[in-house]
This record gives sequence, structure tokens and C-alpha cells, in this order.
Amino acid sequence: MIKKAPLKGTRDILPQEANLRRYIQQVIVDTFTKNGFSEIATPSIEQIELLKNNQGGDNEKIMFQILKRGEKLNLDSNKLEDLVDLGLRFDLTLPLSRFYANNLNELPAPFKCFQIGNVWRGERPQKGRYRQFTQCDVDILGDASINAEISLIKTVGDAISNLGFKDHKIRVNDRRLIDYLITKHNLSDVNTDIMIGLDKLDKVSVDKVLAEFESKGIDQDSVKELLSEVENLKNVSVDDLKSNFNCQEVDDLITIIKSFASSDKYKVVYDPNLIRGMGYYTGVVFEVASTSEDLNLSIAGGGRYDKLVGNIINMDIPACGFSIGYERIAMLLENKVLDEECADKYAILCDSLSDGDYRTIMHEIDKLQAKGYVVSFVSKKKNLTKQIDDLKISGYNKVCIYKDKVEFKEV
Amino acid sequence: MIKKAPLKGTRDILPQEANLRRYIQQVIVDTFTKNGFSEIATPSIEQIELLKNNQGGDNEKIMFQILKRGEKLNLDSNKLEDLVDLGLRFDLTLPLSRFYANNLNELPAPFKCFQIGNVWRGERPQKGRYRQFTQCDVDILGDASINAEISLIKTVGDAISNLGFKDHKIRVNDRRLIDYLITKHNLSDVNTDIMIGLDKLDKVSVDKVLAEFESKGIDQDSVKELLSEVENLKNVSVDDLKSNFNCQEVDDLITIIKSFASSDKYKVVYDPNLIRGMGYYTGVVFEVASTSEDLNLSIAGGGRYDKLVGNIINMDIPACGFSIGYERIAMLLENKVLDEECADKYAILCDSLSDGDYRTIMHEIDKLQAKGYVVSFVSKKKNLTKQIDDLKISGYNKVCIYKDKVEFKEV
Repeated sequence: MIKKAPLKGTRDILPQEANLRRYIQQVIVDTFTKNGFSEIATPSIEQIELLKNNQGGDNEKIMFQILKRGEKLNLDSNKLEDLVDLGLRFDLTLPLSRFYANNLNELPAPFKCFQIGNVWRGERPQKGRYRQFTQCDVDILGDASINAEISLIKTVGDAISNLGFKDHKIRVNDRRLIDYLITKHNLSDVNTDIMIGLDKLDKVSVDKVLAEFESKGIDQDSVKELLSEVENLKNVSVDDLKSNFNCQEVDDLITIIKSFASSDKYKVVYDPNLIRGMGYYTGVVFEVASTSEDLNLSIAGGGRYDKLVGNIINMDIPACGFSIGYERIAMLLENKVLDEECADKYAILCDSLSDGDYRTIMHEIDKLQAKGYVVSFVSKKKNLTKQIDDLKISGYNKVCIYKDKVEFKEV
Repeated sequence: MIKKAPLKGTRDILPQEANLRRYIQQVIVDTFTKNGFSEIATPSIEQIELLKNNQGGDNEKIMFQILKRGEKLNLDSNKLEDLVDLGLRFDLTLPLSRFYANNLNELPAPFKCFQIGNVWRGERPQKGRYRQFTQCDVDILGDASINAEISLIKTVGDAISNLGFKDHKIRVNDRRLIDYLITKHNLSDVNTDIMIGLDKLDKVSVDKVLAEFESKGIDQDSVKELLSEVENLKNVSVDDLKSNFNCQEVDDLITIIKSFASSDKYKVVYDPNLIRGMGYYTGVVFEVASTSEDLNLSIAGGGRYDKLVGNIINMDIPACGFSIGYERIAMLLENKVLDEECADKYAILCDSLSDGDYRTIMHEIDKLQAKGYVVSFVSKKKNLTKQIDDLKISGYNKVCIYKDKVEFKEV
């Protein structure tokens, strides 16, 4: 007898959820495609050398590694490199970089692309954190101008709007503006610590962050001045932002924000607190919250990462991208009623019949399906009442029993 | 510098092919859904015990096995079971069995479902055989009647027809009819050898198969009589089949075939030679060839496998299923022109602009997209002539340059 449950941290997806996930994917794909992004796909398994060449952080520690096969496998060795040669991808960015290098000559520049696929992380499973989950990345490679940021914000804003989220806010910032403030307050030496602290401010109290800074020996006066300046920036109008930053990046950020000033689908706003954790972001960063009230529930995020792709493949490739939180969106839309669930769905029940009867049924199903109906043809069960109830619960609002030669009796 | 190519036997999928694959998947999903099948999904990684509990054949030898993680990993051991605890699935049938056992109480009976997903096999890569490929299975669990076979043949026949294949033939047989013939010719002792030999007849000459039988010491006279009877059966009309088999199974097979006698989308025909290799089939088997002429290029196949799911989970579960050759269909449709490729696609080129200009562009894109057009917004490159040529090759038949305040100049 086998274990029936899937591996902890992975999930069986039942019909209702599978339906919803396909709907979400379709809306995203349609929106991305309509905005000129092309789909690509890369393998789930990659050479271990590529996956370990990751400059993005700790992901390689949680990688699922794959045993060598056949003669290449030497079980007597106790060295990892003798045992494994492949791994499961833990994000889509590293595979995208390899893909871009491998297919450069066949791709347009700039390259506007998206990838939807599973990734795997061998973390301890916990609520809402899976070992296998779907990522959905949209990127522009090879465009250093803010046209990339604007195209991505529009595309992801549209996708989230098309999924039915109303009044969502897209918060933007530029990490170089934070750098500017950090330098202004003489904190350049501890730039990374400050960034990490500021990034925590939407989850942790100011006092706690200040205590952490103190424990690291960071000058409290400077830090308090910095925090107070960041706090004040929240009330500055976009047009007045320029007077607060004596650097060119602020002009671009203002242009990006004001480009969406007349959108009625979403608001693009400046958030001086937005840092986004990933170390590889080099400029503009963005994040989408599911509603304008609940700023903490991020459903998409991204930014410019001009060094990452280039470093991996030894080329200079400006890059900017957005990642949509597919699993979180699926969770938030869990109870959404899809249009198809309201449509007429027929179930035709029968015992074993003659071939003439089956021909009649096939013909009838074709006719109903041509009208757009879902028609399921199912063996009649002994407990008919329960079967009909179950079918109605599954959304079959028309249940017919094939009685005689050509008669369908609706029950 | 990393290796740019993906692992041998796996592939990068570029936009044109990704587009085609999504189209194929959408047609299949729509057809399956319209016929009352529900989508499910299972994880790509499963416990090694489940994957090794496979009664279907050699697949476990080619499984990708995953190294244990953290404290569970003892590199000093040279025993496989100390090193690995998970594996990548190599088919969708085993995960389906586990899924069914795990979720039994929440599933209707019979359960009509489909699953589209990647599987991995560590085989030596060769033309058309991949280490990662997509499988597309549709199954009915819990229905012992021929309603299951008829529903599956209709559904897969429709899907292949909806993909644009014309006049495809669905060949059917029942393995129990072959058993009947083998017994009749006193060859029961070597049933498996005969099955394997007959299965080869569409690729290998009769003489070669006979030589193989001889080398195994199988009585040549009996075998020749059997082969000749099978050959004669090819010319027997469906209605006359009954007189050739003194067993109940032939009635069901005749009913199945005649149920589709008036279909104008596909022909369902009896093929006495059809065996299908997989040992787990227990009754009716079916196979679809891409055209009625080219019988060898199978694009879908399946049959009844009443013992497999039940054996794995210690229950009695009649089961019948079809697997669509997704990769082969993608290969055959490679040059298909999709409708969307013929639609108007706009590219709007510009330099860096003012926020007012961007607002105009965003508004214009929304208007065009509301009409259904694809609109890509791209940075203008120095070599404009080449960029426009490239865009036109990519299907952008309308290329506009944003010149001045509100003017779009089509080039």
C-alpha cells in the first residue's frame, strides 16, 4: 500500500482549482500577448553548474539536486559533485538568462517575453509556501530606457485589472533615490544594512528597526534623520519630488508615474519605502498590492536588474521585469465564479445500449456542443438519486436519462 | 562563462513554437471540457517508493532521482536508499492512481478527468525522443461499461478533428480477442511472445517475426495459421466479425465500432493487428493515426487497463484512458498558421518621451487593444530600417513611429 498523500509542500489540484488556474493563466497570457510579449519556455532541469552560478542569493541552498545516471554515477564517492549533475530550477530568471544567451541570434532586440512555469524549492513547507509552485515572469531584455518600465507597468496593470482586481495600486520607487538619501545622511558605509532595515518597515515597527540599527552600531541620529525624511516624502506631490532629489533618476521616476496619471484602471504612485529585497535590482522597482488599502499583500513585483543577465552570460544586457504572484492570485480568487460555471451543462445518463442508440446519442451530443454546451456522457449508477444530486453539485444543471430509442428525459 | 545550451534531450521553446503549443493545448482543453472531463494536476515530484511501485515496466530504470536534503542526506553511505527520497514522474498514470486514492471522497464516480503535464525520462536522447516532454492523458475511472470507451473515442476523435486533422482513423481492437485466437491455435503457453511479435508487424516483415518465433522454439505451423487468420480478419466486415469469435467481447467491440458509423469527422475501424505494447492493457485498445494513409504515425493511443490503478492502491477500479501524443502533434502542426498571426498587429516605436506623450500613447494602445489588436510598444533603435524589417517578420504588419505630440506615422 502506497502513501496516498503527495509529498509535503506539494499539492494535488482538484478540478475546481485546476479550472480557476487555467482561467488565470489564460487572462495573463491574453493580456501579455496583446501587449506584444512573446511566450517562451525553458526546461525544468538544468545543469548544476548553471544553477550554482547564481548571484541572486540563497536559492542554491534549497535546490533539488538530481542524481547522476548509469555509468556516470559512482555511489562509492562521498563528494556531491560526483553524485549529481542536474538540478530543478528554483526561479525563472536564471533559465531566462541562459535562454537569452543560447538563442540571441534568433531573438528581436529589445526582447519582450514571458514565461509561466513551475519552480521547485526544497524549503521547509509552511502555510502558503510550497516546494513546487508556478511562477509567471514578464521581462524586457535589451532596453535601457524607461520605455521598458512603462510597458511593463501597463502590461501587468492591465493583467491584474483583467483578472477582476479593482483600484489596485502600483507602487514605484528607484533604489538609486534611496542610495542618494543614504549618501546624503552619511550612511554609505552601511548601505546594505539600511536597505534591509527600510525594507522591513512595512512589517516591523520603526522602533524595532531602530533597535536593530543600534545593535549594528549604526549612528542613531543619522538614521533617525533619514527615516524622518523618508516619512516626509510620503506626503510630497509627484511634481514636488524633483526639489527633494538632486539626481537625474528622479526625472525618470516622475515621468513614469505621470505617464499613468489618466489611467482609470489603476493608480501608479511613488512609495519612498519600497525597496524590494532581492539584491539584484539596480534601479526602478515596483510592486502591486491587491487593493489600495492592503499594501502588504503583494500580488506582483519587479524592477530593473541591469547586471544579472549580463553577468551570467558575460554580456552587457539591460533588463527589467515583473513577476506575478500566480499562487497568491489563485488563493485570492479561490471563490470566483467563472462564466462557464453558470452556462448550461448537460449530463446524459444511460446503461449499456445498442449501437443504434449510441449513434443517436453521439449525434445529439454533437448538436448540443455545436451550440456551445458542455455535454458529459456518463454511465447510469444504481443509486440514481445520489448520482443526479452529485452531478447538480458539479454544475450539471441539465441531467437527461436516455430512456428509449430517441427520447431524452430531463430530470 | 556558463554552457548556453540546455541539457541534451531538453529544449528551449521559442515564441513561435510556444504559441503553437499553447494553441494545441487550448483546443484539447476546450474539447475535453466540452465532453465533461475535468482537469486535474499532480506534482512533478513524487516519493521514490511510489515511483518504484510501478507495475507497468522499465520506466523506473530511467527515472531521475532526487538527492535527499539537509540532515537527511548522508553522503558517506553508498546505498541508493540513503541518498535519494524523491523522483521526477516518468508518466501521468502513476500520479493519477495516487491522486485518485488520495482524493476519492471528493471525486464523482465515474470520474472523467484529464491531465496535461511534463514528464521526465533519463533516456539516451535521440531524434524525437526527449528527456522532458509533455503528456496529455484523458481517463475515466470507475466505469466498467463500454460507455467509457465510447466517451473516450468521441472525445479524442473530436479533439484531433478540432486540431485540423482530417479523415483520421481510430483503429480499435480488444486484447481478449487476440487471447481467443492464441488459445484457439494452442499457443497460450507463449501468449506474451505472440503478443510482442504481432505488435511488431506494422514495423517489421512477417518473415522476420516468424524467424523470431522460430528462434524461441514456437511451433511454426500454429503460428502461421494464426497469422493467416489475423490477415483474413482484415477483410471481414464488422457485421461478420461475430461469426469469427465465439466470445462475448466481440459484441462489445462491434457496438463500439458501429456507434461511430455515422460520424463524418473520423472513422472507427477494427484492426486485428492492433495490440499496443504496454502490458497493463486488459481489454479494448485504440490508436489514432494522423491520416488514414499513414497508419504508422500514431498521434494518440490508449485502452482499458482495469488492474493498474486498483493494484497500486489496493482497490478494484476499472479504468480506461487515452493519451494524446502532444509532442508529435506539435511536430506535425509545426508550420500551421494560427489565426492570430494573420490579425493586425501594431508596433509603436518611440524614443524617450515626456509624460504627456506617454499618456497619449497609453490611451492609444488601450483604444487599439479594445478593438482586439495586439499592440507592442517598443524603443526605437538606431538601425530603424532593420528594426522595422524584423518587426514585420515577427508579424507586426503595422509599424508606427510616434513622432510628435499626437501623431502616429505608419511606416
